[in-house]
Order: sequence, then structure tokens, then C-alpha cells
Amino acid sequence: MTLEELTFARRFDAVSGSAIREILKLTAQPGMISFAGGNPARSALPDETVARLCAKVMAENGKGILQYGATEGYPALLEYLYPYLRSTLGVEIPQGGMLPVTGSTQAMDLLCKALLNPGDVVLVENPSFLGNIQCMRLYQARPVPVESDENGLIIERLERAMQEHHPKLLYVIPTFQNPTGKALPTERRQAIAELAAKYGVIVAEDDPYRDLRYQGEPLPAIKSFDHEGWVMFLGSFSKIISPGLRVGYLAGDPRIIRKCTIGKQSSDVHTANLNQAIVAEFLRENLLPEHIHAICQSYAVQLRTMLEQLETFPAGTTYTRPQGGLFIWVELPQGLDATAMLNECVRRHVAYVPGTHFFAEGGHANTLRLNFSNSTVEQIQEGMSVLRDVIAHS
Amino acid sequence: MTLEELTFARRFDAVSGSAIREILKLTAQPGMISFAGGNPARSALPDETVARLCAKVMAENGKGILQYGATEGYPALLEYLYPYLRSTLGVEIPQGGMLPVTGSTQAMDLLCKALLNPGDVVLVENPSFLGNIQCMRLYQARPVPVESDENGLIIERLERAMQEHHPKLLYVIPTFQNPTGKALPTERRQAIAELAAKYGVIVAEDDPYRDLRYQGEPLPAIKSFDHEGWVMFLGSFSKIISPGLRVGYLAGDPRIIRKCTIGKQSSDVHTANLNQAIVAEFLRENLLPEHIHAICQSYAVQLRTMLEQLETFPAGTTYTRPQGGLFIWVELPQGLDATAMLNECVRRHVAYVPGTHFFAEGGHANTLRLNFSNSTVEQIQEGMSVLRDVIAHS
Repeated sequence: MTLEELTFARRFDAVSGSAIREILKLTAQPGMISFAGGNPARSALPDETVARLCAKVMAENGKGILQYGATEGYPALLEYLYPYLRSTLGVEIPQGGMLPVTGSTQAMDLLCKALLNPGDVVLVENPSFLGNIQCMRLYQARPVPVESDENGLIIERLERAMQEHHPKLLYVIPTFQNPTGKALPTERRQAIAELAAKYGVIVAEDDPYRDLRYQGEPLPAIKSFDHEGWVMFLGSFSKIISPGLRVGYLAGDPRIIRKCTIGKQSSDVHTANLNQAIVAEFLRENLLPEHIHAICQSYAVQLRTMLEQLETFPAGTTYTRPQGGLFIWVELPQGLDATAMLNECVRRHVAYVPGTHFFAEGGHANTLRLNFSNSTVEQIQEGMSVLRDVIAHS
Repeated sequence: MTLEELTFARRFDAVSGSAIREILKLTAQPGMISFAGGNPARSALPDETVARLCAKVMAENGKGILQYGATEGYPALLEYLYPYLRSTLGVEIPQGGMLPVTGSTQAMDLLCKALLNPGDVVLVENPSFLGNIQCMRLYQARPVPVESDENGLIIERLERAMQEHHPKLLYVIPTFQNPTGKALPTERRQAIAELAAKYGVIVAEDDPYRDLRYQGEPLPAIKSFDHEGWVMFLGSFSKIISPGLRVGYLAGDPRIIRKCTIGKQSSDVHTANLNQAIVAEFLRENLLPEHIHAICQSYAVQLRTMLEQLETFPAGTTYTRPQGGLFIWVELPQGLDATAMLNECVRRHVAYVPGTHFFAEGGHANTLRLNFSNSTVEQIQEGMSVLRDVIAHS
């Protein structure tokens, strides 16, 4: 036998790697205006604060930080996470119900690891976040899309899908959804929590964008309507502190957290203490409110600029008008193909992600996702005018 | 349906969590002399250097470090890892054959993810590292133990097991093995590489202890005898810089690395940039040789002290005499039960790990693993005298 004959595990049969991350690599070229990715703005990354907090935590507990830590989490971060969720979500997480993770991507991975057998159905929004759809595919689960309207997941469709498919899990991004930017209204959030309990479905509530709100009032978390523990909340500091630090958390029923903790023992033993300590210090010094306020002011202008540009796009182009988050979702006139257009755009130094990648079953060639957080106002104006031009000539 | 009726994934059927990590939690009590764990000594953790390097990399590239990174690794770390393996292992890793990971535990996880289907056989040393046996169990693979003698894995047994079980993977810790401290001689290393190619078996060469050598000459890596790419090398900075930073690497065939990289996209997207940058700086400044030299001087004394203590143990007690690493393996007279003895030892503030946990099929109640790196000479003298006393009265 030669190495060329080596077969890989069957879990990869339906997985070819994240198309988005491949596009992101293409767009790393200098001079590229990237509306792809979901990167925070360079100016939103608190490098001086993190450097200061690094020095502080290393001076206070350097030896402890460099030693092995508990899989269950760095004590200081655990200490601050419970009150943080109480004050920001109004949710009381029971002791043992909180697990710091290596980015909320790991929260999804551990939840799938704990719950999913091959063939299990996971209900997903349509479109939804590609990375986590890939995650469930690697567990050989079957993502089943549920239809959305302009406000997100349609509750009647969701209930019918629960009756028909007996899903193990519902994966939902309720606030400023990736890729559409839509936010589920309060009554749908409550309905999701009720349906989860009624049909015995675990909800993975993935809510990394909730603090990036530029107008309107905060919405309650689905978790806040959960009385029995069916909702697992996936939290992230990637969009409000730094994605490069890889710190998030999973919060919910302690029995499920316990299973995820066992799964994490052989994933990475524990999330790096230094990174947990830095985030703990952010919470301890209560730096987030002011930092988030500053980010949001800038992102609001970027979003408005991109929406203004979209108003000048060819007739038949529709798009979402999010109140927050990082993304606008665009539907081009039928017949246009966002994948085909991407080459020409990249040639002219503008990138985005074709929408088809966000649909569990593909299709929707005329859609695309635009990110505004990672470009300046000038770049948005310039890039959108290239995009408008390419569309007009397609 | 109530939440109590929730069923977890079948992959957990044979997994109850790491017994070692549970013992470690017990032993975190103040005043405990712990021969459990595999923790570096507190004095071996370079907190001042890491604090300095943190400040340096944050000043040089703070914004880049806080932004999303590539799944493939932080460029500076990749740049230094290839020559590092060339100079320390004498192994030339082809471009695309290196993947920085979140501790080498993740390397094992990704390799299992890439290769193993349920029911696949993984050959393991007997005893071997519990954490990675749990990892393969979570992939529903079947660990099949291969017998060792005083020099480690017996090559004739290994070949017979390959013929009989058609394994997908061999998991081996060649140098100062966990838990026995044994080091495989050169000719067995070469034989393993040859058998892997002959029978088409991927070798996971897990070698975190190789630099912790207190006497004797360095041994070549199994990977250095691998001409076709069957050997995947799992490297770690946990024992020579810091386990809390969670940085390791997987090195080998680029096609396998590519599959692991896709798997990593939905595990944690990428290893935290800050942690990779710190390790890159350790390599760039060439700090490892001197740091390892200092650690080894101290560990050598600790090991010698523990071996001296063992000489005074009741007749019928046998133990390994490692030339490096972190562990001594002890066999008590038949009939003694190291698990039963542990309670009494813990009551007297001494802890270790009963050896039974390291055997894929259990048994071997009279064995135990002792770690010497995490105790001072005085603690070793005191703790070993308690252990001797408990054994004498068992």
C-alpha cells in the first residue's frame, strides 16, 4: 500500500473545507478592499489595552497562567462570566453551567460532540453560518434548512420541521444574523424557547453580534425564555474584544456542560490561561461598555455608508437594512451569478462572499454577503462603486 | 419529554472523563504533595520571559495578533518551526506539512478526526497516555494494546498486531514514555517506521518529553526513518515552555495536514495568535537551549531523589529508571492495590495516579505512576516516605 491510497474518515465525505476561508486567503492580497470575512476593524482591536492587561495578569499570576489549567476554565474568568451574563442577558446561569472555550466555534463543536450521532437532524436557518454547518457535517449530522422571512426564522415552519424531522438540535443566530443581518423579534424568540421545550430540541443560540447594535432597543435572548434548560447560549468575545485571542463560552444546563467538558479534555485540555485571564481582566475592569460604545459609533457610520451606496445599485437589487452586526445581505436581480462575478471583482481588488455558500442545500446564485466592519468609509465608497459597476455589466 | 430524558451521543458510551484530571482536582488542595499530573515545576515556567515576549510581540504586531488568523498557523511561528524541526530532529518537513495546534492534544484529536471511522483499530502501547486513549474512544475507534518489555514496544508483537488487526493508526510515545518513562532504542524506532510503510499504518509519534533528557544520548525520531510519509510527528511546547499557553504542532505529510486543517476550521478556527507569536519569539531569540538546560539540571536532581527513595521501598517493588522525562513507573508486590491505597495517601497529603488507568483494558492494580517534576527535593523525600509507609501497611 502506498500513502496515495490512504483513505480519510467518512466524516469528510460531505466536507471540502470552508469556502469562505479560502476566499479570505485570496483576499489577503495588499490593496484588496474586502467585504468578505467578518473581521473587526483594525481600529476596533484594543491592542494597547490588551498589552497592558497582559503585563498585569502576568505580573499578578504569571506562574499560574503558564501552568496547566482546569478544563472547566480559568477561575477568574468563571468568576466574572456568571455576573456578566446576569447583567447583560438577564440570565441566571446555574453553577457548573458555564464553560470557557477556545472561541465560540469550539462551543458549537463540543455541543455537536456531546449530542449528535450520524444521521441526526439539525435544523438551521436558511441561509446560515457556513462554519457551523461544516461543523455539524463533520459529525455526519444532517442540516435541514427552515425558511425565514424578513424577520428571520418563521415559527410555523420551525414547528412543522420539528414535527416532521425530530431534530436533536436547532442552530440559530438570533441577533444581526450571519449572513443576513436580521434580528428575530422578541415574540419569535419566546416561541423558539417554547417549541424547544415542547418538542425536546436543544437550541444552540449563537449570539456573537448582539452587542454591536447601532439603533433600536436590545432584544431579550432566547435563553431568557428558557425555563427547563433546553437552550445553550454560545457567547463570544471575538467581535467585542478580539477574534485572535480565541475566547468564548458555552452557558446552559450543567449536565450538558459536563459532557462538553469531557469532550474538551481531548480537544485541547483547556483554553489557554493567558487568553482567559486577559478577558477576565476586561470584565473585572468593566472596560467593555465604553469599548463597545466606541466600536459601534464607527461601525454605524460604515453601515450607513454601505446602505447609501446600495441605494444607487441597479433596479431589482434588494438588501437587508440591519440595526447592527457586521453584514448586509444582498439579492441581485434573478439571473445574475455572484460567484461568476467574484472573479471580476477580485481582479478589480474588491471581494465579498457569494451567498450560495450559506445555504445548506446550495442554490441562490444571485445572493451575496457584504461585510462593512473591516473597511473604511472611503474603501466602502470605492469598493461599492466597483461592485455596482460589475453588476451593471453582468 | 423532559431534559432528564436527553440522550448524549453514542461516542460517549465508553468514555467517562479523564480519571487523571479528576484526581488532579482532588490534589489541588493546599499542602498536597502531588506525584500525580505531569505538570512542569513552578520554577521551570519562564514567566518573566513570556511577559517580556508578550510585550514585544504586542508592540510589534498587536493589531495583527488580535485579528483573525489563518487556520494554517501564524506566519512567524510557521517560519521558525520548519528549521526548528530540521535542527532538533534532523527531519525535513515539506512545505504545507506543518500545522500549529492548540496543544499537541489537538494534534491527536485532528489526526483521529481525519483518519478514524468507528470500529477502526488503533494500536497503543500498554500502558499508554490515558488522555489520547480517551480521544480515540471518542472517535469510537478500538484501542488494541501491544505488549512492551523493559525497552518499550516489542517489535515482533507490533508486526503480529498489524497483521492481525489491520490498524489505521499506531499511537506511540517513543521517548520517556507516559506513564513508564521508557525510551525506545534506535533500532526499534527504525523498525516501527519500516513496519508502518510495509503494512500501511499511520504512526502518531507523540514526543513531548524528548528534550527533557538528564543522561545518555539523544535518540533519532521515528519520523527520521520515514521515507514515504507514514509518520506524523506530534510536537509540544508544553513541557519546555508552558502547558498553559497551549501551543503544539503536527508535522508530516501535507495531504494529511490539509485534512487536519479542514478539521481544525470547525474545532477552533485557529490557535490564538498571541500564543503562537510568543512561541515564535522563543524560537527566534533561540532561548530554548539554555532554558531546557536549566530545567533539566533541576529535574535530574528530583528524579535522582525519587529513585533513591524507591531503593528503600519494600522488597518486591520494582520500578523504571528513566534517563529523562517526568515519570517513574512503579510495580508493587502482587496483591497490592494502588487505587485502594490512594485514599489513605491523599488523607496524608500525597497523591499519585494508579497505573490501571493507563491500560486500555484495565487491570494491573498493583501499578502506579509517579511524577517528580512538580515537587521539590524535600517534598519528594517527605511524600515518598508517606507512600513507603502506606505500602508497608497495606
